[in-house]
Amino acid sequence: MQIAFLIYEGLTSLDIIGPYEVLARMPETDVRFVAVEAGELRVDTGAFGITVDHSLDDVPQPEVFVIPGGLQGTFAAARDERILAWVRGAHAHSRFSTSVCTGSLILGAAGLLQGLMATTHWAAKAMLEQHGATYSEQRVVRAGKIVTAAGVSSGIDMALYLAGELAGAETAKAIQLAIEYDPQPPYDAGSPAKAGEAAVQRALKELTRAL
Amino acid sequence: MQIAFLIYEGLTSLDIIGPYEVLARMPETDVRFVAVEAGELRVDTGAFGITVDHSLDDVPQPEVFVIPGGLQGTFAAARDERILAWVRGAHAHSRFSTSVCTGSLILGAAGLLQGLMATTHWAAKAMLEQHGATYSEQRVVRAGKIVTAAGVSSGIDMALYLAGELAGAETAKAIQLAIEYDPQPPYDAGSPAKAGEAAVQRALKELTRAL
Repeated sequence: MQIAFLIYEGLTSLDIIGPYEVLARMPETDVRFVAVEAGELRVDTGAFGITVDHSLDDVPQPEVFVIPGGLQGTFAAARDERILAWVRGAHAHSRFSTSVCTGSLILGAAGLLQGLMATTHWAAKAMLEQHGATYSEQRVVRAGKIVTAAGVSSGIDMALYLAGELAGAETAKAIQLAIEYDPQPPYDAGSPAKAGEAAVQRALKELTRAL
Repeated sequence: MQIAFLIYEGLTSLDIIGPYEVLARMPETDVRFVAVEAGELRVDTGAFGITVDHSLDDVPQPEVFVIPGGLQGTFAAARDERILAWVRGAHAHSRFSTSVCTGSLILGAAGLLQGLMATTHWAAKAMLEQHGATYSEQRVVRAGKIVTAAGVSSGIDMALYLAGELAGAETAKAIQLAIEYDPQPPYDAGSPAKAGEAAVQRALKELTRAL
C-alpha cells in the first residue's frame, strides 16, 4: 500500500512524523515523502530540513495521504495550485485523505471539506469554517474517506485509527506497543477546556511568536 | 538556552521529533540538530533524510541534549567513539542529559548509567542492564541530571517534564496545549502488560523486521 506524506516549506514536524511513525510500521507499506519538487525543505522553526525523494508528480495516486499543518508555511501551501491540484487528484483515487492540525486548511482550500464535519488545531477553528466545514472538537473526525485530526500530536491517534481500518486492530495494537504509546503527560493541559484561559493566552502567544 | 538533538544514520524519527516539538517551543531556546558531521542523515526506514546544520564539534556544551534510539543505527552509534566522546563531554557541563528509547544504550556505552535507575524501549531492557543500569518500567526516569524515557513516543512526556523543570509548569502546560497533546489512542495497548503476549510477539516481529 502506497502512503504519501506531503512535505512543504514551514510545516510543523510532529504533524507528519507522528502519523508516519505509526503508518510506516504496517506490513507491506510503501512510504513516500513527497513535495512539489524533491529535495530539502525546512521545517517551521528552521532548525533542520527534511529531504524528500519524490515530487508530487511521481506519486499521483497514493492509497492514503497525510497533510501536515504549520503556520505561514501552511497558508502558502494552501495557495499553491500545484499542491491543491495534487490533493484533488490524489483524493479522487484514495482510500483515505487525511490531515493533521492546520493541514485541514489545505484540504479545505482544495475544496474537499464543503459541508463536512472536520477538525483542526483549536486555534484555527474559524479558518477551517471559512472552507465550508463544520468544526468538531473531536480529536479525530471521519467524514467518508476524509479523516482530519486536531492539533500537532493528534496525528498519532489518527494514524492508529487508520492502521486499525487498513490493517486490522491486532496490527494497530502491535504498532502502539512497538512505539510504546502509553501516554502519561505530567500535566492535564492538552485542550483549551482542560488547560484554562491563562494557558490558552500563553499558547496563542507561543504559536504566533514566529508570525 | 542551547538544546542539542543528536542525529545519526538510522535513528527512529519520532524519538527525536517528539521532544524537539516540545522543547523548541520554550522561550529563548537555541535548538541545534547535531551529527558527527553536518549534512543529510537517513532515518531508520530510509524513507527520508534529516539535514543537520551542526557538527558535534560545533556544539560541545549544550545545556540539554537528547539522544534518540533506533535499531542497527543505534548499535553503530553506540560504538562510534566520536559520538561517545561528545556525549561524555556534553554531560560534564549539561543541566540535563537525556535519551529516548534505545538512545539510553548510547548513554550506557558512554559509561554514564553505571549504578543508576534508567529506562529504554521495553524490548531492550536486557541490553540496558548490560551497561550497569537498573531498568525501570516507569515511562520517564530521572537519576540526577540524567533523564531517560521509554520507547519512541515517550519522549513527548519526557520533554514536557523537562520543560516544566527548565521553564516552569505554566510554560509546559501552554506548550502541551499548543501541540494539543490530549492523547486519546483508540486502543489501550501501549505497554507489554496492557497489550498482552500476542501483541508483544507481533510487535517484536515488526521491530526486528529490518534487522
